[in-house]
Amino acid sequence: MNEYNDLEKLRDNVKQVTNDIIKLIAKRNDLVVNIGETKSKLGLSTKNIETEEKLKNSMMQICEKYGINIEFGQKILNLLVDESLRLQGEEKQTKQPLMYQLFAEAKRLEAEGKKIIHLEVGEPDYGPPEPVKTAINDALNKGYTRYTTPKGLIELRKKLVDRIKHENGADIDPEQIMITVGGKFAVYASIMTLLNKGGEGIIVDPAWPVYRVCIARAGGKSIGLKTTLEDDWDLDLEELKEVISPLTKFIFINNPSNPTGKIYSKQTLKGVIDIASEKGIKVISDEVYSHLSFKPFTSVLDIDSTNIIYIQSFSKTYGMTGFRLGYILAERKMIDEMVKLQSATLTSAPEFIQYSAINALTLSEAPQEYMNITKKRVDFACKLMDDLPFSYYRPDGTFYIFPKVETKNTPNLAFDILKQQGVAVAPGASFGDNYKDFLRFSICLEPPLIQEAFDKIRRAIT
Amino acid sequence: MNEYNDLEKLRDNVKQVTNDIIKLIAKRNDLVVNIGETKSKLGLSTKNIETEEKLKNSMMQICEKYGINIEFGQKILNLLVDESLRLQGEEKQTKQPLMYQLFAEAKRLEAEGKKIIHLEVGEPDYGPPEPVKTAINDALNKGYTRYTTPKGLIELRKKLVDRIKHENGADIDPEQIMITVGGKFAVYASIMTLLNKGGEGIIVDPAWPVYRVCIARAGGKSIGLKTTLEDDWDLDLEELKEVISPLTKFIFINNPSNPTGKIYSKQTLKGVIDIASEKGIKVISDEVYSHLSFKPFTSVLDIDSTNIIYIQSFSKTYGMTGFRLGYILAERKMIDEMVKLQSATLTSAPEFIQYSAINALTLSEAPQEYMNITKKRVDFACKLMDDLPFSYYRPDGTFYIFPKVETKNTPNLAFDILKQQGVAVAPGASFGDNYKDFLRFSICLEPPLIQEAFDKIRRAIT
Repeated sequence: MNEYNDLEKLRDNVKQVTNDIIKLIAKRNDLVVNIGETKSKLGLSTKNIETEEKLKNSMMQICEKYGINIEFGQKILNLLVDESLRLQGEEKQTKQPLMYQLFAEAKRLEAEGKKIIHLEVGEPDYGPPEPVKTAINDALNKGYTRYTTPKGLIELRKKLVDRIKHENGADIDPEQIMITVGGKFAVYASIMTLLNKGGEGIIVDPAWPVYRVCIARAGGKSIGLKTTLEDDWDLDLEELKEVISPLTKFIFINNPSNPTGKIYSKQTLKGVIDIASEKGIKVISDEVYSHLSFKPFTSVLDIDSTNIIYIQSFSKTYGMTGFRLGYILAERKMIDEMVKLQSATLTSAPEFIQYSAINALTLSEAPQEYMNITKKRVDFACKLMDDLPFSYYRPDGTFYIFPKVETKNTPNLAFDILKQQGVAVAPGASFGDNYKDFLRFSICLEPPLIQEAFDKIRRAIT
Repeated sequence: MNEYNDLEKLRDNVKQVTNDIIKLIAKRNDLVVNIGETKSKLGLSTKNIETEEKLKNSMMQICEKYGINIEFGQKILNLLVDESLRLQGEEKQTKQPLMYQLFAEAKRLEAEGKKIIHLEVGEPDYGPPEPVKTAINDALNKGYTRYTTPKGLIELRKKLVDRIKHENGADIDPEQIMITVGGKFAVYASIMTLLNKGGEGIIVDPAWPVYRVCIARAGGKSIGLKTTLEDDWDLDLEELKEVISPLTKFIFINNPSNPTGKIYSKQTLKGVIDIASEKGIKVISDEVYSHLSFKPFTSVLDIDSTNIIYIQSFSKTYGMTGFRLGYILAERKMIDEMVKLQSATLTSAPEFIQYSAINALTLSEAPQEYMNITKKRVDFACKLMDDLPFSYYRPDGTFYIFPKVETKNTPNLAFDILKQQGVAVAPGASFGDNYKDFLRFSICLEPPLIQEAFDKIRRAIT
């Protein structure tokens, strides 16, 4: 009976301590409201990165001292900080990235009857090759209209294993691959899984905004690793080492990069992989633009496949954007976690679309042709770009150009160009706070339209 | 300058209090480890619902007293409780529901060459009507192979508005509808959105396991509202009132119900809607089986469309399971939040599949025919069921029968039947802790196979 009494006593103590914690939180909230009012008097902004950083470091120290799990400590701290911001009038929101606001504005103007040239959307105008359409039809007629396992058709996964063996020399088990509903879901699933216990993810800036959105949705924190036009958008490995903390779970790279068009060298990739292994973090490599490379491309899979999460898609390679089909490769245990997420939210990718992808993998001419078309257009756009007050890195791949605007007063430039000239380009700020002076051009149009767009942009900025 | 000094002092105080909070958490953790050891000596299980409930009530009281937001208080408490369980050796996992473990086992046996009759999977064997396949083909040939807006094609949303006007008499704006990648994603998106600030969701038990999985993924808490075979699986409105707490965000109903086949009366639905309005919570109504109703069916939309989140799918109505297409209707503001989630994770449903759905909506014979097929099979299965030691509610709709097994020693019965006789049925425990003595039969097969399955089950249980 003694132990039952002990248990009751301990439980009372836990309840008491829990209550004390909540009372301290109340005290903290009062202080925070007070700070908010003082800041408001001083005209200071609510969010203060430096203060947050100090709190984090202090939290990590105490966690270490008292043997508290730091991911847990960070989750508690995140809740406290979010609540502080809320109490200071800054409701945490899942904001739409600026880019999507511009898309929406372009659509609105179009609906009003205005002609808009679209250089903002990352979608090629070439559709799927004819055999892929036929394959859909065949699959429907064979009755492939049902759920598949969440991981995807084994036939398709085996074909991908063969391709990876052939292209990258890596030995992969089909159970290490999950077929996803688009490459985007692969991004979401990998981030949700790696941050499921909390933590931070490193994003190479400038970055496709979806990465940060997914990290925020996972309840994690994005740490930016800045790259610059001056350094040809290359990754600085020393800086990478510096931004890795005990909370870091992964570094996310996009190769070739949206928006810069950068292809990383084998040496850089090897450096990233080595640092990640050393620090015990994962490398997520999103290579959905790899088949749109204008110079030799190295995949992370050419170097290593053990500590890697590899993301690929059929969208750009085969002009299958609207098919929403991608895949993800990782160690078996991680894939099994991601399968649970896809199973709970989507069941699987459509069966007949998965069959059409098996067909797509047999085609080698279409990807080559799509790359050639893209390269010609990008070359043409670069020539036109040279006549404008823009500095830019000539893309190694992708259909994006990400120039810096060398004229003053560029905030809202993308919105101004849209309003004045009916040309939609993505605002640089969408890709990171440091890129407000940049614009992202998506070159997915026929040359005459590209010419027209540049003529109009010249008028808008001169 | 005085105010800058104040600010510094306040910030120091916040840091101090934050540190004190974390130190108290360390103290709490020590107590919790101690409790774990004591429990282990006494042979008690780690999780203790009663203790959790006490902590929650005490937390809510303190929050009220000190003016702390209770959703925030609950999030803190959830983290503390989860960490307690972890420290006591119970890692929080995203477990696959038992049902999926049985699916996997059935697949494994099949791969070994064993013949399995599948009564566990909720997928009809009828495929899509021919015109839907033709519509896919037409759409592909017209080049509808691209992204759409995340909300989905406006043409499709307008058709749905017309249908709802016609079927339910409700006036809906097309902007209140989002086309989703399957009905499952609609479930996920609605739960993620309603619980984004924390809180609880009420689930009617027995329930499709995905609802609980989604609530857990959203970081919320599932509150079960028990229904029983003895009460013909009807909802008790008084009990509903009782389980609603200040943390409750919604009640989730599935009508007709998977697994019970229950269709709720108009009166019951009206009761639920009235209580929800009164208490300031939402009603989520998943009606994906509504076209498989064997008796008159009332949709929530027949009663109200203002405080409702309505989920529908093309899967069961048109035999389009593998197309992964559904939709969700809610107030504009909520839809806009859900659009952000679909945009960040999936972009949109495939364009040509959305076009094929426009075609499906013009078909009235196929849904009727599918309902007739299903009704005949369910009638046949019920007749066979009557000869077994099972008690059950004769389904009002769906292709499910959810009998209670009236023999003793039924744990693992589903797995035993699978192993001994090669018939796969879903274990009742998948649908809630109170339903371990139940089995879910999914009647999606031709009568001779249904007959064979029941003959084998008889052998397994007698």
